[in-house]
Amino acid sequence: MSEFPLTAELDVTRYSWSGSELSAQSDQVIVEVPVALVYNGISHVVMMMTPLDLEDFALGFSLSEQILQSPDQLYDIQVVQSERGLELQLRIDGEAFDLLKARRRNLIGRTGCGLCGAESLEQALLPIRPVTVDCSTTLDHIGQGVIEIAAHQKVRASTGSAHAAAFFAADGSLVAVREDVGRHNALDKLVGAMARAGVDTRGYALVSSRASYEMVAKTAAANIPILAAVSAPTALAIDYAQASGLTLLGHVQPQRQQIYTHPERLRATP
Amino acid sequence: MSEFPLTAELDVTRYSWSGSELSAQSDQVIVEVPVALVYNGISHVVMMMTPLDLEDFALGFSLSEQILQSPDQLYDIQVVQSERGLELQLRIDGEAFDLLKARRRNLIGRTGCGLCGAESLEQALLPIRPVTVDCSTTLDHIGQGVIEIAAHQKVRASTGSAHAAAFFAADGSLVAVREDVGRHNALDKLVGAMARAGVDTRGYALVSSRASYEMVAKTAAANIPILAAVSAPTALAIDYAQASGLTLLGHVQPQRQQIYTHPERLRATP
Repeated sequence: MSEFPLTAELDVTRYSWSGSELSAQSDQVIVEVPVALVYNGISHVVMMMTPLDLEDFALGFSLSEQILQSPDQLYDIQVVQSERGLELQLRIDGEAFDLLKARRRNLIGRTGCGLCGAESLEQALLPIRPVTVDCSTTLDHIGQGVIEIAAHQKVRASTGSAHAAAFFAADGSLVAVREDVGRHNALDKLVGAMARAGVDTRGYALVSSRASYEMVAKTAAANIPILAAVSAPTALAIDYAQASGLTLLGHVQPQRQQIYTHPERLRATP
Repeated sequence: MSEFPLTAELDVTRYSWSGSELSAQSDQVIVEVPVALVYNGISHVVMMMTPLDLEDFALGFSLSEQILQSPDQLYDIQVVQSERGLELQLRIDGEAFDLLKARRRNLIGRTGCGLCGAESLEQALLPIRPVTVDCSTTLDHIGQGVIEIAAHQKVRASTGSAHAAAFFAADGSLVAVREDVGRHNALDKLVGAMARAGVDTRGYALVSSRASYEMVAKTAAANIPILAAVSAPTALAIDYAQASGLTLLGHVQPQRQQIYTHPERLRATP
């Protein structure tokens, strides 16, 4: 194993056959690193992640996992590199930390996978968070967003393999784009970047992936009223979006958008 | 929330604008359900999954997570439906269960996320499993595999959104295909299906997704010597494949395949 780099891309050698010869070419691939989140000295969780915008991720994950209720509960972030990966050491508000410890005591003797810390069905699904802000936008804006973020997907351009999550204001102007090897991480980074900048959430999030249950739950927890996914939604994502009051679109392309829930926020033309 | 169905697809209504009218159409979306794995009465983990080939998944996950060392340690599987999701109740060998309990005791007071049960960097990466079987195949076979599995991706055909994992013998003949909303689950289902049928692993796995670290680790744990991914590999996946002695291909298309590690198992033509 090589050391864990703090870059998004890495040069590697790949091989292909040309005629009867095996030839070597250089290639760039996306970096995936174990990243541990450590709250007030207690290691909580490890994610596989692209080491880019780590401070955004730390805040976004803490908010979307409801470890923090507001950005000002996060006092300080330190990024510590080790042989085994990266540690994000967060110093958080005492009250939030007490809640986290209590939550962890409830999980004594348990381990989780697939869903964060969920080991039994009772713990599996996050409580439904109703969206409390509203906005109105057009399908044209959302379709154009697919074209617009492409220019900002730098890691994807160099490695052919990165998810993106972007936020647009209701007038269609691009506010922020974040990338990661994982689609949940990209969305968490976006949520963190928005919270750090104090961005008004009345607008739409656009993700380069499909819309699973967790993508909808994170978007609703961030109080973003519209989620548009380039690929398909799952049945549970639609249920959750319906119940949260979130507008969910799937199969979003410049000329084609399908609306699955709460179409009342969308107009056909500008 | 609706009840959790035991089908892979669900009918929903979606909306789109046609002129100034909002029109409703019917659509099929993929089902995503919380599925808890319960070992000898102890709930261990919850995955979001498409409820198809659940017995294959139960065995494959147990093997690739090294909870079971061999298929015969699994005595019985029961699928129990509840309002909150599905439970896969596994009855396993006492020795394997003792090891699982010991592993869980080491995690007291901890929760995990992103990686199975990993909370600190020390626990993050699975030990490297060397591949112990060998085989030789051609790039033509692997490229043709992309075309061949398409006909078997039934959930993808109806919902536009399912990952597939397939296994081919070294002569290019298709052995099994499994689908799921999650790419790790699809691979676990394939591994379980192969173990249940006692399939010789000398051949190649083909996955419709990218090759992340975890996909390589699961393939190596299943002792399959070649993994071909339709999308890109990550840097860590390449490191792990190199160290495991696994042949890793990325960007696999009918006419184009890139080899990232151990090209010695591959020939250009049949």
